[in-house]
Order: sequence, then C-alpha cells, then structure tokens
Amino acid sequence: MALGEFELIERYFRQTAESLRRQRGDAPLGIGDDAALLVPPAGQQLVAALDTLVEGRHFPSGSPPRSIGHRALAVNLSDLAAMGADPAWFLLSLTMPSADETFLEAFASGLLQLAAEHRIALVGGDTTAGPLSVTVQALGFVPPGRALQRDGGTPGDLLYVSGTPGDAAAGLQLAMVEGVGAALDDQQRQYLLDRFHFPAPRVALGRLLRDVASACIDVSDGLAADAGKLAAASGCAAVIELERIPLSAPLTAFADEAGGQRLALSGGDDYELCFSVPPDKAPRISPLLRTVGCRLSCIGRLVEGQGVQVLRDGHALLLETTGFDHFAGR
Amino acid sequence: MALGEFELIERYFRQTAESLRRQRGDAPLGIGDDAALLVPPAGQQLVAALDTLVEGRHFPSGSPPRSIGHRALAVNLSDLAAMGADPAWFLLSLTMPSADETFLEAFASGLLQLAAEHRIALVGGDTTAGPLSVTVQALGFVPPGRALQRDGGTPGDLLYVSGTPGDAAAGLQLAMVEGVGAALDDQQRQYLLDRFHFPAPRVALGRLLRDVASACIDVSDGLAADAGKLAAASGCAAVIELERIPLSAPLTAFADEAGGQRLALSGGDDYELCFSVPPDKAPRISPLLRTVGCRLSCIGRLVEGQGVQVLRDGHALLLETTGFDHFAGR
Repeated sequence: MALGEFELIERYFRQTAESLRRQRGDAPLGIGDDAALLVPPAGQQLVAALDTLVEGRHFPSGSPPRSIGHRALAVNLSDLAAMGADPAWFLLSLTMPSADETFLEAFASGLLQLAAEHRIALVGGDTTAGPLSVTVQALGFVPPGRALQRDGGTPGDLLYVSGTPGDAAAGLQLAMVEGVGAALDDQQRQYLLDRFHFPAPRVALGRLLRDVASACIDVSDGLAADAGKLAAASGCAAVIELERIPLSAPLTAFADEAGGQRLALSGGDDYELCFSVPPDKAPRISPLLRTVGCRLSCIGRLVEGQGVQVLRDGHALLLETTGFDHFAGR
Repeated sequence: MALGEFELIERYFRQTAESLRRQRGDAPLGIGDDAALLVPPAGQQLVAALDTLVEGRHFPSGSPPRSIGHRALAVNLSDLAAMGADPAWFLLSLTMPSADETFLEAFASGLLQLAAEHRIALVGGDTTAGPLSVTVQALGFVPPGRALQRDGGTPGDLLYVSGTPGDAAAGLQLAMVEGVGAALDDQQRQYLLDRFHFPAPRVALGRLLRDVASACIDVSDGLAADAGKLAAASGCAAVIELERIPLSAPLTAFADEAGGQRLALSGGDDYELCFSVPPDKAPRISPLLRTVGCRLSCIGRLVEGQGVQVLRDGHALLLETTGFDHFAGR
C-alpha cells in the first residue's frame, strides 16, 4: 500500500515524538518543517553522533521490527554514552521497501520507548522507499572540556569494561543459525537474544565516568578491536587478561568458557563501554556500581607500545582477528 | 577490493574535512572518535536537518559520483537555507555496495567542494556496505526567534520563488531518457543537466530573507506541492499565476512554454526557495537581487482557504498532481 511521507510520520511517530519534545521544552520546532529548531543549553558543548544500520549487515533479515527501532537509537545513544554526554535530541532517516504498517508500528514503538527512557526527543527526519536501512543522528551535551575521548589514556591506566561482553554475539548466532544453543534453557536463550535485540546503552555510566575515566569507547566491533582503537588513539598498547573478562552464565552455557571469551573479544554488538582509569582514580569505580546497575570489571591495562595483547594465565595469545570491517564482511 | 571503514575515511575525507574544521575553529573534535564535539555560538538557536538520497529513487543509477556527493549535501544545505540558517557542521553516512575508489574520490570531491564553498565542516559519520544510499545531517544556526518557518504566512502575503524552477526536472529527464531534448544545443543541454546534478542551495538568500519573508520552504517536490505545504502550514491557500513562473530559455527550448510550466509546477529537485512576503515588505525584495545572484519572482499570493490554485490568464486550472510521494513512486 502507498502511504505518503507525511502521513507515515504523522501516524506512527508524531504524537509520541511531540509529547517528548514538549516535555523537554528546548526544541521550539520539531517534525514537520524543513529542519528542527533547537536551543542548546548555555555554556555546554554539543556532541553529535550518526550511525546507520543496514538490513543483512547490522541486523539479520527478518529481525523483529521493535528490535530494529530500538537498536537504531541504542547504537547512537551508546556513542553519546562513550563521550559522557547527556542525550537531548535525535533525527531519524528510515528507508524501507514499502510502507508496511505492521512493521512501522512495532519499529516506532521500539524506537520511541527507548527514547522516552532516555528523555531524548525525536525532532525530525526523513522516510523514503528503498532497501531497508535506518540512520539515526543523535545530539547531546557535555560541560566544556569534560567529554570522554578515546585519546586520553596513558601507560599504567587500568582498563575496564561494563556488563558482560559476548552476550550479544551469542544472541546474534541464536537469531541467525537454526539449531545452535540446544543446551540453553528458555530463559538463557531469551536473555542472549535480548542482549542482541535490545542492548542497553550505558548513558548513566558514561555521565559518571566523566570524573573518573581517562579515555572511553563503546564496544560495537568486539572488545579486542575497540580496546585496540582506544589504545591506538591514546598512543599506547592494550593488555587484556582473558580470565578477567566477565562472562554471563548464559554465555558460558552457550559456548563454554573458551568460546565465551572468544565471543567477548571479537563478537561485537555489545554496546558496553570500555574505558581506561588512572590507578589513583580506580578506588572510585566500585562506588559507581551501586548507581549504574551493571558490572564494571577491570580486564587489563594500558602499557607502552602499540596493538592489543591478550594474556591467558600470563602468556600472550595470538589474536585471529582484531576487528570488524564493514567492507571485508563479517 | 576490501578497505576498512577507517582507511576509507582517512583516505578520501579526512584531510580536507579536518582542514575546514580547523579553519572554523568551533569543533574541538571531528572525525575519528565515537562522536563529534562542537561549540555552538552563544545565544543562537541550532537548526538540524537530515535527508537521505537513495539510488534509483533520488538519483538515477549510474549518476556521476561527483553529483551524488554534491546533491547529498546540497539538499541539506537547502533545508538550512529554507530556515534562514548559517551552515556550520555536517555528518555523513555513506552506504555503498563495495569500496570503489574511483567512486569515492569523485563523491568526496563533489561533497567537500560544496562544503568548502559554504564553510560547513564534515565532523563525523559512518561508512558501511549495502545498497548505495547517502544520508547527510546538517547543523546550522539562527538568532533566536529569527528562523524562517513554513507556518508564518498570512492571507494577502505575496508568494515568491527564486531562480527558474523546472530546470532540474528537465535535467533529470535528459539524464534518464535516451533521445529526449534533440532540439537543445550542447550548452542548453549541459545547463539543464547541471541544474539537476549540481543544484545551488540558496543559503545567502535564506539568510537575507530572515528580515523579509513571513514563511519559507525549499522546492524539492515541485513548486505546486511545496507552495501547498507552506500554505497549509500557514492556514492559507496558495494562488499561483502560471504566466508569472519564470522559465529559463533552455527549459522552454526543451519543453516549450506549457511543458516548462508543467515541469516547474510539479517536477521537483530544484532546491529553490519559495517564500511569502507581507505586501509592505515587498519593496525590500528587489534590492536583494543585487546580492543573491539569482532571480526572485513574485508568482502569486496567499489567500483565505486551503489548497493550491493555479491560474492561467486568470482562470483556474485543475492540477493533475500535487506532490511527490516517496512511497507512491514518481
């Protein structure tokens, strides 16, 4: 069925989006004009992220539309979190083959529910016909000079990760490959699937890390690759101790311990934060645990040199892969 | 060939982008971290636009890559222009089937040349593999309360358009359909092709209209459709007098006068500005002509009522189409 751009936006996005925009009170003009009109808070720096999800590349064909909506915003909120920013507004570009109302309703609900949770208002966008793909552009704020960058680490800093990486990669396998995970009970299976379909961007953690972390990155391409990017930007090498990577019980039930470690290192899609902390600030990490509602684990450190070294029982392992390359396939 | 995301950005975008970012001096962190870090000028409102171009939908397959790069930014600059905003920064999401270096070099050159012309800095983005599609998100500024919106028109306001609409639609036909435009000489043909491939966003005009126009919209879907949106947002009807629509000589050579009027009314892709002006401010339009370097023509007025009425010699015509619907096809 053919539905116009404006009617689509009107029906599935506008009402909820407008209500959140009015609540915030800092966006005089939202959806419906040539552009949105926004009032940045005085004296703050603006943080701008943009990420695209393409069907068959960032999510399997046939993914639940609620998950596609959730993830499109979550990956951008995760970028804001990695900068220590407070989310404010976002714009959405949705390209899809046809104006499928069932898809749209679920997509919008996944997107706008996460938006409401983080008080980030949808203020504009674009819908068009074409192969399924979603781009979100998110805007947030940090006090001047307080943003978490990738390049602030120093040799000697401790390296941390939030949550339990690897879960999302296991969830993706469960979603894509028939018959895997036979050993899992229903609850474990659902937990892992949810960790892929509905990642929780670590916005509150990012904000708290402004005072503690020397550098920060979000884990989208796998812990080894992203720790490597943080280390490279900081002019250091990263050392990761395999035994210290926290693994969830469902992940080890899915892949045993060695398999879980491999998924955590190179799986991707976790949207956890990986960050470095100067040793004198490390005592400030455990008090954060009570506030942020996720694990924070020291998994290694930054040292002089370059690259990523993974240690098992103190011995260096060779990494088979160091990253996720969108043009080299997965 | 397989090239990583970072290497791609590094090679084709980073150097030029970084040089423009440094020139502006208001973006402490550009390409290469989780998000860009930007310093909004004190006391200004932020204007945010986002538009996606999909191959086969917004540009023909096989379009010159320089044109794709140019148009991806131009359509967003045009949205900023329609708000009366000063362009500042943009983010780019580029999805393409493979990392084709010839494509990338020309695409980046088209994009960054237009960026340099308008002093808008590329500060971040995303590249990924998938069907060819480009999303640009552009940010700019206006003094508080000075943005041009669609909803400020009043019955009695005069309706204007910049440039010569219809040219881009003719150019698109020349690009897509073999054998059309046999009557054109080379220069006329090139002029019309360029008007589709390399539209000139009316940024300087938009800025000057802040003091003059009551409402403004950019013409992307055809003059009738976009004037209709301005009128609807303003709670008015639009009356367009066919004889007053300015047609370029190449357009009438391509399609004769009646055909040219039809292309101007419903063709789209012009990225001219359509705006309403209160009668007492109309004398301020002709002095603008000297500054903005394009025609400004009064083509009608806003009246009580709703919809768009097109008059030929004072008699109302029926419009066959009132818009461009991305989901109804072209």
